[in-house]
Amino acid sequence: MIKLTPQKLMQDAFKPFGNVIEMDEDSSFLINEGTTRRYHALANVDVDAQSGQAIISIFKSQRRSAPIAITMMEKHPLGSQAFLPAEAHDWLVVVATGDLPSAETCIAFIAKGNQGVQYAKNVWHHPLLPLVELQNFWIVDRFGEGDNLVEFYFENETAVIDTLL
Amino acid sequence: MIKLTPQKLMQDAFKPFGNVIEMDEDSSFLINEGTTRRYHALANVDVDAQSGQAIISIFKSQRRSAPIAITMMEKHPLGSQAFLPAEAHDWLVVVATGDLPSAETCIAFIAKGNQGVQYAKNVWHHPLLPLVELQNFWIVDRFGEGDNLVEFYFENETAVIDTLL
Repeated sequence: MIKLTPQKLMQDAFKPFGNVIEMDEDSSFLINEGTTRRYHALANVDVDAQSGQAIISIFKSQRRSAPIAITMMEKHPLGSQAFLPAEAHDWLVVVATGDLPSAETCIAFIAKGNQGVQYAKNVWHHPLLPLVELQNFWIVDRFGEGDNLVEFYFENETAVIDTLL
Repeated sequence: MIKLTPQKLMQDAFKPFGNVIEMDEDSSFLINEGTTRRYHALANVDVDAQSGQAIISIFKSQRRSAPIAITMMEKHPLGSQAFLPAEAHDWLVVVATGDLPSAETCIAFIAKGNQGVQYAKNVWHHPLLPLVELQNFWIVDRFGEGDNLVEFYFENETAVIDTLL
């Protein structure tokens, strides 16, 4: 059993996996007669426009019972997938490096309630892990032809989230 | 001066203007080993994939001082634009019918904090109108070539939101 301690979600550490979607002052400007600040183009939605298109869905997700065991990952070979909290509660993000994921290569982040995440195409990630009993997310991903879901169950070790957050 | 009384935001009434993005049980199914319910494909993002692409931004928007006067509208001829609350507070949506908008053709809706809205291409709408002092929204719209913003200031009358919500 491998213990995973979530680190604070930061742009730099997450870069290999996709985008952190958060208010980044450098990319912002005022619109709407000065009443709104636009934090512009924080992520490009990547859907292979020849065969698919971007859609918006909602995921209503339950907290898993503690200790949270990470035994599998999934990835989407044909499109990015963005998770945008509809209620501003902190939540967990778990990704893995390598061709096939394993407990040894898992990395866990704790995202703030005002941070969204977009996984790039082909990035191994764990399904949603809210920390409150029930949390809704706006989802931006791909609809279209082709098999866009690959799941992989770990062969040996299990990773367990260190719940002392 | 024309007084606008916001009506409850419902799919049917909003259909001519785009999509209400909300948990619609008919379009839902369980995923992630039963821990998540997916409300699927509530809106198709429409960006003209030849010349543009979908992006995700954040708008941080201030409440306008009461009484809220509606004196202009805007529209996006090249792409849809979705507004997804990042904090679940009720907010106002104002649209207009016709080739050019006017106070006479404005329609106001009050959206719940768990309702997002996607304006279809070319739909006249007012910039963001939160009802709390400051509210953040996730935005899914279009980046690309071409002029995607048309604004129109009303010529005669002004519409005023009935603030007795």
